[in-house]
Formats: sequence, C-alpha cells, structure tokens
Amino acid sequence: MTEFSRLEKQINFILEIDKLKHIFRQTYLLDQSRRENDAEHSWHLSILALFLNEHSNVPLNVSRVVEMTLIHDIVEIDAGDTFAYDLDHAQSQLERETKAAERIFSILPDDQKKSLRTIWDEFEAHQSPESKFARAIDRIQPLLHNCYTEGRAWKANGVKLSQVLERNKHIAEGSQDLWRYMKTLIYEAVAKGYLVNDLENTRL
Amino acid sequence: MTEFSRLEKQINFILEIDKLKHIFRQTYLLDQSRRENDAEHSWHLSILALFLNEHSNVPLNVSRVVEMTLIHDIVEIDAGDTFAYDLDHAQSQLERETKAAERIFSILPDDQKKSLRTIWDEFEAHQSPESKFARAIDRIQPLLHNCYTEGRAWKANGVKLSQVLERNKHIAEGSQDLWRYMKTLIYEAVAKGYLVNDLENTRL
Repeated sequence: MTEFSRLEKQINFILEIDKLKHIFRQTYLLDQSRRENDAEHSWHLSILALFLNEHSNVPLNVSRVVEMTLIHDIVEIDAGDTFAYDLDHAQSQLERETKAAERIFSILPDDQKKSLRTIWDEFEAHQSPESKFARAIDRIQPLLHNCYTEGRAWKANGVKLSQVLERNKHIAEGSQDLWRYMKTLIYEAVAKGYLVNDLENTRL
Repeated sequence: MTEFSRLEKQINFILEIDKLKHIFRQTYLLDQSRRENDAEHSWHLSILALFLNEHSNVPLNVSRVVEMTLIHDIVEIDAGDTFAYDLDHAQSQLERETKAAERIFSILPDDQKKSLRTIWDEFEAHQSPESKFARAIDRIQPLLHNCYTEGRAWKANGVKLSQVLERNKHIAEGSQDLWRYMKTLIYEAVAKGYLVNDLENTRL
C-alpha cells in the first residue's frame, strides 16, 4: 500500500502538469496559425539542448540542461506566462512563481519534490554553466520564431531593436557563438522591416 | 563559414520540427477541450521518464530514455500519427516512418543525423531496457488520459477492453509495477462504464 501511495503522488503530479498545455505564450508557431503553449515550448527547447549544446562556451552536463528545459515553465501553471519584454510584470514574477513551485512540486513524494526544486532553483539562479546554457536557448527559441514569422510577436507587442538586444544579450553567457549568430538574424530582421530600429544614428 | 554552415543545418532542423506541434493524436487533454499534439505528448512523456523511472524492472540510463521520448515522434511530421488501436494502418507504419526519418534527420549535420537515427532505431527495436521503458510510458500517458477523461478516445474509436489489454500488456516489459497499477485503472474504467467490457464471461 505504501508503494502505491508513492506512485499515486507521482501520477497526480503527472496529471496536474497537463495544464501546462493551456498556458499560451506570445510566440507564434512558424506557420503563424496560433500562439505556442508552454508544453510545446518546453519540448522544443529540450531538442535545442540536445542538438546545440556543442556551441556552449564550456562543456556541459547535457542531461542536466534537458532536465531544466523540461521543468522550467511548470510554475507557469499557476503564475502564468510573463512575456520577455514585460518588465512591470517581471517584478512580481519571482514571488508568483515561487508560490507556484511550492504548491505544484509538493504533489510529488518529498524526495522528488526536493530534487525538482533543486533543478528549478539552479535554473533560476543563472550561475551554473548548465543553467546559463538553458537560459540562452530559452531566449533563442522565441527569437527564432520571431525572425521566421516576420516579427509577429514583436509587432503585436510594439517591441523594438534596443529591447531585443538588451533582453537577449545574456545568451552570450551560455554561448558566444550562438549570440553572434542570433545577432545576425536580429539585424537581418531589422533590414527586412520585421523589427523597428530605434537605434538609428546611435552606435550599435 | 564552415562553422556557420553546420549551425545553419542545426537551425533548419529546429525550424522543421516546429511542425510536430500540428500533428494531433487521438488522446484528449484532461479538460477534454481538444486533442493533444505530438510535441505536447513528447514533453509530457519526458516528464514521466524523469519521475517514474524508479519503477523500471531494471536500472536505467534515464538520459537515454529522455532522448528517446523527446525524439520518438518526430517522424510523424511526415508519417502522421498512427492510433494505437489502428492495426491496419500500423502495417504501413514502419515504412512511412523510416522514409520520414531519412528526410527529416538528414537536415542535421551528418554526425548528428547518425546519432539521432541510432536513438530512434533503438527506440523502435524494443530491445534495450531504456527502449522498453520508453515504450511503456509511451502507452501509460495516453492510458492515463483515457482513464481521466471518462474514456473519451476509447469511446470515440469504439475501443474495447480486450484491445486495451492486448495493446498495452508490453508495459510489463518496462515495468511490471506500472503495468499492475495501470491494469487497476483500466478495470476501474470498465467498472465506471468508460470502457466496454467484451471479456464478460471469459477468464481475465
């Protein structure tokens, strides 16, 4: 009976996180038919982790990166998605997400709750090489989607070049190579008119 | 330039697999608002791998299981989803999926194409402990969704108890504990009228 009770907690957690499929982000799918949800985003990000990790500034424990990309947004079931360029909303984000982590992770057996919290804390702390890389690809994926949907989410939210550079420059902490590549795509998006250039006549 | 060419192949692959978010399965989300897509399913499955692996019959390389759960359905971008109980369609499945793997995996640099194909072949071969467990949870996730949506996909497709037991019994090859637990849920679904019992008066 004890064994089943442990398994039942695990199953309850698995059922609970089905809700992540209803948390929609600002990012559009590449065919622009609709916005992306957090479950899809977490999957896509995990694939980026598998196939782009060679570009990390330093060698990585790739499995750890994937654990982070799989679980990093679960707190948004309660806290909702905070758009990368929404700085007002970002101020209350940590508090909302910490409360969410407490409720949702507690559905698991205690040892797994602690281990999940450790992974999430590591991701949020931006200190380990794995969390720096996970955060880098967490920016790269929506950037790619913006660049390849004619700047759909940027336009919808009035986001400008200076904001895109400011909010994404920490990609370099995970991978200088990938940040160099993404800057090329960002400036190409400006040239194509997908992103408003508010830095004209200033030094880039 | 050579370096960018390799990265561009990786980015092209990442963009291509966005299409997995449009491949819909028979499984309904738990709130029954719509069916689930393959990207969401692959994410959910990877979470099952992280939190249920202790129930495997044998010790596992969990990272390898997660690699499989993340990539196992990418071929469905071309081949489409084959419903677990659609035996006619299943006959042509391997051929369609192998062709899809060849096209989609080839977008990657050659070494990554080979490594991805090796993972996918391992999953499809059902021989390694990791692939047996990955296949077990690949059945458990939709079973859970059926049990907790009053048998929505079973009813929609006229699926009966004998089929559910037959198509899912290989869960035991990955985890006898999880198969025992899932059988409890399946018989509970019969008792509640979510699943038609075509085995009445036969020995279970």
